[in-house]
Amino acid sequence: MHIAALHQPSQIQLNQDGNLKHFLTIEGLSKSNLTKILDTAQSFFDENNNLITTPLLEGRTVMNLFFENSTRTRMTFEAAAKRLSANVLNIDIARSSTSKGETLRDTLWNLEAMAADIFVVRHSASGAAHFIAETVCPNVAIINAGDGRHAHPTQAMLDMLTIRRESNKPFSELSVAIIGDIKHSRVARSNIAALQTLGCKDIRVIGPRTLLPVAFDDYSQDVRLFTDMDAGVKDCDVIIALRIQNERIDSPALSSQQEFYKLYGLNEERLALAKPNAIVMHPGPMNRGVEIASSIADGAQSVILKQVTNGIAVRMAVLVLSMQGQLQYQGFIDTLSL
Amino acid sequence: MHIAALHQPSQIQLNQDGNLKHFLTIEGLSKSNLTKILDTAQSFFDENNNLITTPLLEGRTVMNLFFENSTRTRMTFEAAAKRLSANVLNIDIARSSTSKGETLRDTLWNLEAMAADIFVVRHSASGAAHFIAETVCPNVAIINAGDGRHAHPTQAMLDMLTIRRESNKPFSELSVAIIGDIKHSRVARSNIAALQTLGCKDIRVIGPRTLLPVAFDDYSQDVRLFTDMDAGVKDCDVIIALRIQNERIDSPALSSQQEFYKLYGLNEERLALAKPNAIVMHPGPMNRGVEIASSIADGAQSVILKQVTNGIAVRMAVLVLSMQGQLQYQGFIDTLSL
Amino acid sequence: MHIAALHQPSQIQLNQDGNLKHFLTIEGLSKSNLTKILDTAQSFFDENNNLITTPLLEGRTVMNLFFENSTRTRMTFEAAAKRLSANVLNIDIARSSTSKGETLRDTLWNLEAMAADIFVVRHSASGAAHFIAETVCPNVAIINAGDGRHAHPTQAMLDMLTIRRESNKPFSELSVAIIGDIKHSRVARSNIAALQTLGCKDIRVIGPRTLLPVAFDDYSQDVRLFTDMDAGVKDCDVIIALRIQNERIDSPALSSQQEFYKLYGLNEERLALAKPNAIVMHPGPMNRGVEIASSIADGAQSVILKQVTNGIAVRMAVLVLSMQGQLQYQGFIDTLSL
Repeated sequence: MHIAALHQPSQIQLNQDGNLKHFLTIEGLSKSNLTKILDTAQSFFDENNNLITTPLLEGRTVMNLFFENSTRTRMTFEAAAKRLSANVLNIDIARSSTSKGETLRDTLWNLEAMAADIFVVRHSASGAAHFIAETVCPNVAIINAGDGRHAHPTQAMLDMLTIRRESNKPFSELSVAIIGDIKHSRVARSNIAALQTLGCKDIRVIGPRTLLPVAFDDYSQDVRLFTDMDAGVKDCDVIIALRIQNERIDSPALSSQQEFYKLYGLNEERLALAKPNAIVMHPGPMNRGVEIASSIADGAQSVILKQVTNGIAVRMAVLVLSMQGQLQYQGFIDTLSL
Repeated sequence: MHIAALHQPSQIQLNQDGNLKHFLTIEGLSKSNLTKILDTAQSFFDENNNLITTPLLEGRTVMNLFFENSTRTRMTFEAAAKRLSANVLNIDIARSSTSKGETLRDTLWNLEAMAADIFVVRHSASGAAHFIAETVCPNVAIINAGDGRHAHPTQAMLDMLTIRRESNKPFSELSVAIIGDIKHSRVARSNIAALQTLGCKDIRVIGPRTLLPVAFDDYSQDVRLFTDMDAGVKDCDVIIALRIQNERIDSPALSSQQEFYKLYGLNEERLALAKPNAIVMHPGPMNRGVEIASSIADGAQSVILKQVTNGIAVRMAVLVLSMQGQLQYQGFIDTLSL
Repeated sequence: MHIAALHQPSQIQLNQDGNLKHFLTIEGLSKSNLTKILDTAQSFFDENNNLITTPLLEGRTVMNLFFENSTRTRMTFEAAAKRLSANVLNIDIARSSTSKGETLRDTLWNLEAMAADIFVVRHSASGAAHFIAETVCPNVAIINAGDGRHAHPTQAMLDMLTIRRESNKPFSELSVAIIGDIKHSRVARSNIAALQTLGCKDIRVIGPRTLLPVAFDDYSQDVRLFTDMDAGVKDCDVIIALRIQNERIDSPALSSQQEFYKLYGLNEERLALAKPNAIVMHPGPMNRGVEIASSIADGAQSVILKQVTNGIAVRMAVLVLSMQGQLQYQGFIDTLSL
């Protein structure tokens, strides 16, 4: 796929009213766009903080196109779509007609012609969801469920929802630290963009020099770089430990997982340097004893499993918002208190 | 499976009222039967030509039994059944109890006992669906989703629906040409039967001698045979290009795909020989540059993707009609304007 | 998994009201518990003895966790859950994050956090469902769908439902014989426990010495042991032939399947020794000609396929009862005539 000639995702993911049409990347979305996603997600919890089900997408067809295996992300989208009463079809792309010599473009057009309303796309190539949205199936709502090293916007929004629900401060008063392989992480990239858009006071990234970006041109000057863990987590309100994705590291950046844990693993001593009620997050799956100590993962300050539940709510929100204007239950979006 | 002793499918697929009970093959169905399928399918489009959803099969259980992999056909049946609110179970026959030494007959009986209403059957053996309907599970509605080289009746009906919706003439005034490997194609076989039953004026098959049937005993005298492509497509209203199914050709019939394209590929010059508004169809998946030029596949006269959408409607129709008399929403079938 | 320190399943599968919370094993449940399951299952048949659908679990999420492949059992649970309008997610445990080094405990916690209400667990290790219910996810309702050689409680309850529906006598007047590999069979184990709890008059197990338990300490003195088939089936009301599970037999217990059939296969002569209207059961999949003659499997006294249908009803019942107190349609459970 050649994406050089494509427009910026930010130019195509909104419709003319400025509302979500596709959900490809955080970059280019406004604070109002992100807040609407968070408010919509919040509306899917009842008074006991349990997820509700609601038939907002009754009669809509959601197709999960996972070119790259990710059981967890696929399941959360499937669970989210089913809670909205959508019809869900999981496409086994590997076994589909592409194996009969059909082009991917033809396969996608065929899926669209099966009356798909939404494609949830996971692909190992950066820009894949963007490419599909702009040049192949612009009339299907495309939700990016992770593309290469580029973006993982629903992960970012579930992290933002978790921070909003679990911190007792607005973003403008928060210090947030992200630890680990910042350079190769789509989660880090998307989270930083979301935090900046939501006006986070203080964003820090922590890791060994080899796992930090060479240049921070992508980020505004707000992002602070730390190679020293203790300095990085000091007085933080939120600590996000990333998974060390061995499978994405091109060359050995560290002699061992043990060395990483020694230098950057989140343990009790380091957590004690953060604010007293700092929350600990991790996108999962965790390497216990590598990027995080088990006692922290399971401790009182961990909100890691709440992230998973919030992930359902955020995916419900994105699915619903991408269909706005086409919903059977008109008025749902409008009645959200924005 | 020994099918020599079986009745003709036409004898078992209708109930005593002459209505559909199983859907195994086009042969033996009346013009009235086929028209009812087309009318029912048409009723599933709204005024904007979008597919509707309707809970006609609420509480019914549809099981997809794909002994042969066909992602596309399975998905269209799954999408159709879900649009009707049926419960859908996809059976992974390869992993089922047959691997524990259970006979296929026992496996099918077990599936029936799980309160299945409909089996959608895809099998590489000709007559498999027929065999199941007649001798194994006669009380389950059996829908043939393609069996060997024999029949692919829902493909035929979606082609008929596409012709009816996209042509501005009745079947009695249409010239239809089918191009390619007629000899080995279940699509060609079923389409010819459907066109004949619906009273098509002029049916032509076009292809190299080696890919045409040795004898045309199966067809009425209406079918005309062409080995010359230009002569075959001249003044046609409908052109159906078939996929060259390399996997079904027993011996090399052609020296190369390039040679096929040179002699029988549908390109702009040849399409210009047909009627000005002739429509171009293909059952998919396409081999672009083999049986059809990309410019034609994506051109203004192509209705190839509409076939896919019509395929959902036709499968919804067949599922509903096979359950007639057992529907919760009585009267639906009767109110169709026939 | 170390289960030595666990409580007895009987201590954790009931809530403080004595109602079902998890469904792990028959042992420890009261006659009232089992009767409630049977009555609930019976309520899912209409006046024509067809299974109904009812939205009792609308909005509930059932996750099928099959660590061991069992297409049949998984499908019956999936069919049961869908008949209750639950959202069903099938987890491909082999492809899930455990392959990325995540611990099983973390995977389960993640699934719970996706707002799962019920886990249906199949595992090759005895006690797996029990372990999950007690130590990993006590707030999710855990249904044991078979664990190692230990228990298969829904199979036992569908057998009890079949006996109750197909015999014209109460359990207190019935003689029931179970034939085959009693020693390694979770079905036998669970069935004996259920029969004892329901007050079955006479329980017999029949098989070669090597396939019978060394000691009957697990059973009450009611269970009678037979190595002679003819003596064992004499005057029985119910005969349950078990599958010879070659894959579970550690050492060759019999020189051949033929020898087993000669000594213990259920054939016409032996069935004639039982009561005139004795019913024949088998959990499936059958080895025809090994543990049962084909003429018996398909004969008038066989209720083998009715077991399958009853299996859907029993699984519906267990799913509903495990959610009691949380159902949208309050009062359903209470109105059952117990």
